[in-house]
Amino acid sequence: MSSSRLDPWVDSYAQRTNGMQASEIRALFAVASRPEVVSLAGGMPFVQALDMEMMAETVSKLLLERGAVALQYGSGQGDVFLREQILDVMAEVKVTAHPDDIIVTTGSQMALDLVTRVFCNPGDVVLVEAPSYVGALGVFRAYECDVVHVPMDDEGLNPIALAEAIARVRAEGKTVKMIYTIPSFHNPAGITQSQVRRAEILAVAKSAGILLLEDDPYGLLGFEGEPPAAIRSLDEEGVIYLGSFSKTIASGLRVGWAVAPHGVREKLVLAAESAVLCPSNYSQLTISQYLATQPWREQIKTYQELYRERRDALLESLELLMPAGTTWTKPAGGFYSWVTLPEGLDSKAMLPRAVSQLVAYVPGTGFYVNGDGHHNMRLSYCYPEPERIREGVRRLAAVIEGELGIAATFGTTVGLRKSDGHESPAPNLA
Amino acid sequence: MSSSRLDPWVDSYAQRTNGMQASEIRALFAVASRPEVVSLAGGMPFVQALDMEMMAETVSKLLLERGAVALQYGSGQGDVFLREQILDVMAEVKVTAHPDDIIVTTGSQMALDLVTRVFCNPGDVVLVEAPSYVGALGVFRAYECDVVHVPMDDEGLNPIALAEAIARVRAEGKTVKMIYTIPSFHNPAGITQSQVRRAEILAVAKSAGILLLEDDPYGLLGFEGEPPAAIRSLDEEGVIYLGSFSKTIASGLRVGWAVAPHGVREKLVLAAESAVLCPSNYSQLTISQYLATQPWREQIKTYQELYRERRDALLESLELLMPAGTTWTKPAGGFYSWVTLPEGLDSKAMLPRAVSQLVAYVPGTGFYVNGDGHHNMRLSYCYPEPERIREGVRRLAAVIEGELGIAATFGTTVGLRKSDGHESPAPNLA
Repeated sequence: MSSSRLDPWVDSYAQRTNGMQASEIRALFAVASRPEVVSLAGGMPFVQALDMEMMAETVSKLLLERGAVALQYGSGQGDVFLREQILDVMAEVKVTAHPDDIIVTTGSQMALDLVTRVFCNPGDVVLVEAPSYVGALGVFRAYECDVVHVPMDDEGLNPIALAEAIARVRAEGKTVKMIYTIPSFHNPAGITQSQVRRAEILAVAKSAGILLLEDDPYGLLGFEGEPPAAIRSLDEEGVIYLGSFSKTIASGLRVGWAVAPHGVREKLVLAAESAVLCPSNYSQLTISQYLATQPWREQIKTYQELYRERRDALLESLELLMPAGTTWTKPAGGFYSWVTLPEGLDSKAMLPRAVSQLVAYVPGTGFYVNGDGHHNMRLSYCYPEPERIREGVRRLAAVIEGELGIAATFGTTVGLRKSDGHESPAPNLA
Repeated sequence: MSSSRLDPWVDSYAQRTNGMQASEIRALFAVASRPEVVSLAGGMPFVQALDMEMMAETVSKLLLERGAVALQYGSGQGDVFLREQILDVMAEVKVTAHPDDIIVTTGSQMALDLVTRVFCNPGDVVLVEAPSYVGALGVFRAYECDVVHVPMDDEGLNPIALAEAIARVRAEGKTVKMIYTIPSFHNPAGITQSQVRRAEILAVAKSAGILLLEDDPYGLLGFEGEPPAAIRSLDEEGVIYLGSFSKTIASGLRVGWAVAPHGVREKLVLAAESAVLCPSNYSQLTISQYLATQPWREQIKTYQELYRERRDALLESLELLMPAGTTWTKPAGGFYSWVTLPEGLDSKAMLPRAVSQLVAYVPGTGFYVNGDGHHNMRLSYCYPEPERIREGVRRLAAVIEGELGIAATFGTTVGLRKSDGHESPAPNLA
């Protein structure tokens, strides 16, 4: 983002600010948030599905009964009773832990920041999926990490490619600090690792002595059967597990957590105290009161059904309307499908035309640090109603048809517009 | 903090974790939080003074009317309407700004973290008062800054000493990135800069081309006359101003803010998005609703009167009970008085004895990075009722008398117990 005003401090910034870049597409998203645009871009949960009268009563009761605690500073590690309740939530993905292993954070984004802060020196390598969560890439870049993508297949992160990447990076004399993975209902790829795959990935990490950072905001939002067992359920010392209430209760509360091996957890608490003193008691106790007094498993079922219906609307209309040569993943949960465009099309170059046709998505380049993703886009089905999703896909299909016409005339649209593959996270990409 | 369990990741941590240290006195504070102990240690605001029924109604109304916004992700910079309301709050300390100059943070601690993240490379110098806020020292150390203390006098940070420190540090070939100051009702010193002094400090910073970081959590909590005008009211480009609702409304909401020059503010927003995506809409809109519908200036008056009564209780009983040779500052607002013990006494060595006599304070060493502060302690009067404060001072006076007896026998108590001057922030020291 350039400024027309002169910045008198331009020569004073820390080295690390070079890794903090504004998204080129941010301005476009301001346009995309207009009500006439069907946004398949944002990752906003549909919190309207919460019963607001119930929420109001829950919070009223909290403030009348424990207001002096809810409105006071709390522990840097997080409320101890909430940490016990988090154990119940994680039991759904087969994680067992002790409340003392948990640190509550201002959203799991903050847990990502703290883990990176505690482990990564500038130049340390973090291995991530190709593609990977834009907000995690932003954190790794902000700490001047060297981010290396590892290919995925239909079962997620490929363990053979992972082992090869570790060997290659180490042969270059670099230190691999972490493997970052989203095993369930991947953002943005919409892929879920099989249980066999999880064990294979863990085995590679363990045998290389590399920490596995498991990010699991969507784990409880599967559309069929039991939630997948987390990798953390297989191993305690080698995995940091990140969880969040943003998608299962409400994102505006900003409450997530990390489960970490004992020594790591101690460091994370020190880092958290430095970063924010303590997470909000108000948000934490709101969630705690909600979990203690409301049928939260039923609420998660409501969310599952809502998102399944929207996933179905997306997949059906993609099937019906997308031009030949377009492919997409079929998510079994979560918020996202990952689309690959026909040969010769560029998702980022196409975005302004899409927005002018009143549909928005996130171009694939945002999910890579290396300029890949030009042929991809992330479609979110979490927020718009099913009928709006169908309308959005209809508009998008028309835009792609139009681009195909241009490509047929000029050979390709790639490179017709500037596009350097660097994006930074923005809340609407969460 | 040492762990009995072996940490398999002990060789993997980032260099910066060396700057993250657990407080040696943390264990003692666990004891000190027992109800029979009079704690003059913590900086917890007395949020019980809020009308909890009013708070419950305010939040109910918010959730029923705007629940879908309050519980959703928001902007990384913070809610735009709250940012406008913050202008009204800052008008009390004569700061004028544009809402776009403001970034809302998870408590002003997070603003401290972000400013340091954006400006400081390892080894950069930050000049701070002697003593300074323990949570700020923790942040500067976590970013591997070289913290240099500058003496205060009765009017606060000494501008001549400041200019000398800048010259000395620069002569050593080091880069001074910031001057960190708490001009009003200083934590822990209980001193307030005169308006003349503020202009002098600003002039030194400007002529050296060094950024001034003005931390003002207590500015509205003065006990007589108008709130002091902030340094930021004198200059826009050279000052970052940090404000907070933690002491004027409630700390458990974790809402603070920074006002920064335009180019800096852009960088802070990018850093904030990487750190937490966005501040909590739930907390922000709670405050916004409160400011819009409740007489918040009256609430601040209530807090002022409450804290003045407690300050009076503290100063009166110190006057009445403290042994000769003990001195203390007389705060005109805020939460703290800074005590200097008689020659030969060590506040940290004395703390276990004080806690065993059921009174707690924060030893002065926590507010220095260089081992100074052995003869000092911070006394907080914000949380206990006046009668408890008097009882606490009575116990403390007896402990000091006892230490004086030991010192008379053995010469001094300094060094009788290990004490290396390194403390890290903990929420109860806020």
